[in-house]
Amino acid sequence: MSSDLSELARRRGFFFQANESYGGVAGFYTYGPEGAALKRKVEEAWRDRFVTKEGNLEIDSPTVTPEAVFEASGHLEGFDDMLVECAECGESHRADHVVEDATDVEDAESLPTDEVEDLIAEHDLPCPECGASLAGQPVETFNLMFETEIGPGGDQAGFLRPETAQGMFTEFPRLKEYARNQTPFGVAQIGTGYRNEISPRNALLRAREFTMAELEMFVDPEADEPDLAAVADVDLPLYPVDAQQADGEEYLHMTPVEAVEAGVVGSDWIAYFLGRSTAWFERVGVDLERFRLRQHLPGELAHYASDCWDAEALVDGDWVEIEGIAARSDYDLSKHAKYADDSFTIFKEYDEPVSTERATVDPDMSYLGPEFGGAAGEVADALQALAERDRSAFDGDEVVVSVDGDEYAVPVEQTGFAVEEVTEHGEHVTPHVVEPAFGVGRVVYSVLAHAHESDVVEGEERDVLRLPQAVAPTFVGVFPLTDQDGLPETAREVAETLRAAGLDVTYDDSGSIGRRYRRQDEVGTPYCVTLDADPEGTATIRERDSTAQARVELDDLVGTLAELRAGELAFEDLPEA
Amino acid sequence: MSSDLSELARRRGFFFQANESYGGVAGFYTYGPEGAALKRKVEEAWRDRFVTKEGNLEIDSPTVTPEAVFEASGHLEGFDDMLVECAECGESHRADHVVEDATDVEDAESLPTDEVEDLIAEHDLPCPECGASLAGQPVETFNLMFETEIGPGGDQAGFLRPETAQGMFTEFPRLKEYARNQTPFGVAQIGTGYRNEISPRNALLRAREFTMAELEMFVDPEADEPDLAAVADVDLPLYPVDAQQADGEEYLHMTPVEAVEAGVVGSDWIAYFLGRSTAWFERVGVDLERFRLRQHLPGELAHYASDCWDAEALVDGDWVEIEGIAARSDYDLSKHAKYADDSFTIFKEYDEPVSTERATVDPDMSYLGPEFGGAAGEVADALQALAERDRSAFDGDEVVVSVDGDEYAVPVEQTGFAVEEVTEHGEHVTPHVVEPAFGVGRVVYSVLAHAHESDVVEGEERDVLRLPQAVAPTFVGVFPLTDQDGLPETAREVAETLRAAGLDVTYDDSGSIGRRYRRQDEVGTPYCVTLDADPEGTATIRERDSTAQARVELDDLVGTLAELRAGELAFEDLPEA
Repeated sequence: MSSDLSELARRRGFFFQANESYGGVAGFYTYGPEGAALKRKVEEAWRDRFVTKEGNLEIDSPTVTPEAVFEASGHLEGFDDMLVECAECGESHRADHVVEDATDVEDAESLPTDEVEDLIAEHDLPCPECGASLAGQPVETFNLMFETEIGPGGDQAGFLRPETAQGMFTEFPRLKEYARNQTPFGVAQIGTGYRNEISPRNALLRAREFTMAELEMFVDPEADEPDLAAVADVDLPLYPVDAQQADGEEYLHMTPVEAVEAGVVGSDWIAYFLGRSTAWFERVGVDLERFRLRQHLPGELAHYASDCWDAEALVDGDWVEIEGIAARSDYDLSKHAKYADDSFTIFKEYDEPVSTERATVDPDMSYLGPEFGGAAGEVADALQALAERDRSAFDGDEVVVSVDGDEYAVPVEQTGFAVEEVTEHGEHVTPHVVEPAFGVGRVVYSVLAHAHESDVVEGEERDVLRLPQAVAPTFVGVFPLTDQDGLPETAREVAETLRAAGLDVTYDDSGSIGRRYRRQDEVGTPYCVTLDADPEGTATIRERDSTAQARVELDDLVGTLAELRAGELAFEDLPEA
Repeated sequence: MSSDLSELARRRGFFFQANESYGGVAGFYTYGPEGAALKRKVEEAWRDRFVTKEGNLEIDSPTVTPEAVFEASGHLEGFDDMLVECAECGESHRADHVVEDATDVEDAESLPTDEVEDLIAEHDLPCPECGASLAGQPVETFNLMFETEIGPGGDQAGFLRPETAQGMFTEFPRLKEYARNQTPFGVAQIGTGYRNEISPRNALLRAREFTMAELEMFVDPEADEPDLAAVADVDLPLYPVDAQQADGEEYLHMTPVEAVEAGVVGSDWIAYFLGRSTAWFERVGVDLERFRLRQHLPGELAHYASDCWDAEALVDGDWVEIEGIAARSDYDLSKHAKYADDSFTIFKEYDEPVSTERATVDPDMSYLGPEFGGAAGEVADALQALAERDRSAFDGDEVVVSVDGDEYAVPVEQTGFAVEEVTEHGEHVTPHVVEPAFGVGRVVYSVLAHAHESDVVEGEERDVLRLPQAVAPTFVGVFPLTDQDGLPETAREVAETLRAAGLDVTYDDSGSIGRRYRRQDEVGTPYCVTLDADPEGTATIRERDSTAQARVELDDLVGTLAELRAGELAFEDLPEA
């Protein structure tokens, strides 16, 4: 983040390091009043698009999570980074970053620890903190989950969730009931995630505590299709594996349907969410000229994922992941089905019941027991397997099965062989998961960076945040020109009326008008209304981006601003002041 | 919570124990789709009242907090409960609860641990789990904060915040800038708090992870007054200390102004928030017939608090604290000023600069040193103290000060005595804190309990949640009567139109109409619209509480529902169906 924007973020109350009066701790940020409002509006815009408009379910599950969940999910085993500690100053560093920052090696994260250890020794890499050599220091894995103890006694480990997703997976057995056992259905959550970073950096981009907005779309890959027509018009700036490997910075521009038809995006569902996401990012203020959709390289892809795309924003010269869209197959639900004591499938009824014949045995154990002794049980199992495999084997008087290399002959009448007709009304399907997962803080950060500009107005430099109305913390500032003529009272009344009409309003009567405009420019307020002692009963509306002013009758003020808010009126069409 | 409501909460997706498929862990709950929506609406209603309408600031600070903050706040030392462990089964219990549940002793929490230990031994109290005697088992304090480690190395302890308040206090040095150094100003936060309960119980009422909504009102007690006129009409059901000590269950009914004038409530600010809170609770669906405002007894009151009142709701026969309103004096900011490296005061400018004379000394140490040896420094300090206390002592040639019982005579010309004129432009004031702190989960729980009723409709028993519109997860259900005549398509269109008008809508076409009505009754939806094949182009609106039906033209549907939503129209005034 440019230091200008960082200074503005702090001065105007967007965000700053938490607990600075106690020296602060790296990786923890507090959103001030403006930032909290901006973040909340981003979240509301997300809910509107990915929950309400899609007809999905939203839940709210705890952050402290029992160990068993992360044993199943794999986080206990695999959610880690490589750590190297400086023997001299004691500082810990991400070993892969040490290597990447000082050598040509890319993607050191994917290397085994001993290779990274060798690379550090080979290049005699120094500690980024104190400069002492890190050669010979062990490189170890460090699990990134914050651990705690639940209750007294110390025998119940809990972890702060590294993602909200597991809450949607572990509650699946109940959630499917709320969705009336029909796929596709989506479950979403906006909440806190934690990642005990070894060395946090870049403010909101790699924090230890952050907000995520995740949607788990549960789909039957055989049967469910997304509504690609609804995103037919979206232009996707795609950066697929091929293009990356060719080391080009050329993006393919295609619609979701074109991307599927050309085989660039392998899944309809991924293409659908690429479309929805791109349009949504534009709506909340990500500049699509500094935005791309990058496919994961084969090495990046989780072993269970069939495809994954990151939405990336260009911030201060770096591409930053602000969303990941992954086709996660049935990995999550299958894992929990294996570890937990519940059903993670959907029962899909057939249109018509399906009747099939099934061959079964019911061996007479009072015969098999004495006859085959300890092998009797295995002989019975082998008979069942044979019946399912080849029922003609039971056509004669005797049937022969083999157990551990020995053959056993059994009279067919002792096997209880029968063929039953079985009617199936449906089948149990484990849904696949398609997951668009957004980092809310990263989106907020990118939106701020893309909205921030400096220009010159009336010979003075100004900082301005060109935030879209949808996310601007305040929609309109209301100012009395002076403290004479009852103007402050009138202005306060106007502010109240606008507030009652559902607009976000700030009243400000301190300092010169120019200074008040600058203050609102710096927090991205699209419009300011100034009340002067006009005998005609009008007020001026000033637009943030152009700094142009229009004059409007006081009686029309609410209506005009509401129309500007709804996009039903263009500022240019108002009478100039 | 009644088992009926608990079953409904689970079946209809309000809330349930988290991670039940892994056996769950006591004290952690997941809000399902209906509960998450209800909780969000309670939060929005809170924000509307206590942030937006009051013109306060809202922030969002991290949950993981460095140790130093809780050293200052006192939580490290004093945020604990009494623990007794059963030697037989190993289960841990709240020792004070064990005593209170089995003896006449009230408020065992306020006793020292050894007395509680004695009480357990004296009454030979049994383990609530296995029945073995707890006599002789040690009673120990157990800190209720969840602890974790930040970063690798294990040398940086972090705690999950037990309240959101500390975030507002530690960031005060920056927040006061956003408030332009003017009191009164309020800072609010809605967020997660954690309490590592020894034995969690009563579902959302004593959970280990919960949502709080807290407002810290920073006021200058000498100068700032709340707008009591704004709450003039509110009837407060007050249960002050006197009434409690008289063991009566009679509440005083007074307005905030009356309560202050009668001396029942000692602080204007407390009275103001008692008024705002009572009106707010009614708005979100707390039944004021099952609600009271109980003053803390002297033993309950924190040592720094001058007064504290709990808003309590009667749920299943128990009074439950759903909000605490405390006058916390300058305790919080003074503590942080002492422990942290920043300024926790507001500089208040005087209307006019104030000039005062100040007597100072500047002793000649080259004289005092040789003369008084090791005592010279203390003599100098004593001279300064004397100058401030009694400048006439410097009128003569010699001045005598006493240090540790010895007298020292110093020639006045060696003391550098002088009287300066000092002009003060203002003073540094440490604001006092008035804190209304709400337990969001407890409010949600009370609202559900108060809204829940069973009645008989058309000979069938029904469960109904009589939720106010302001918090009902869904405002209107839209149903096609049958799947014929294009009704589902029409109904879907109607649902879309209502959604576009900003209403929360559910579409449902599964099961009989009666069953669909029941479903909406159980989640508290105020209205349902049924589309039938009426040639006149009308639809029926059915009201949840009365189950009465009205017939409305399709073209008027949006307008009618919007008016019902805004309270501009009464359902009774619609034409009967």
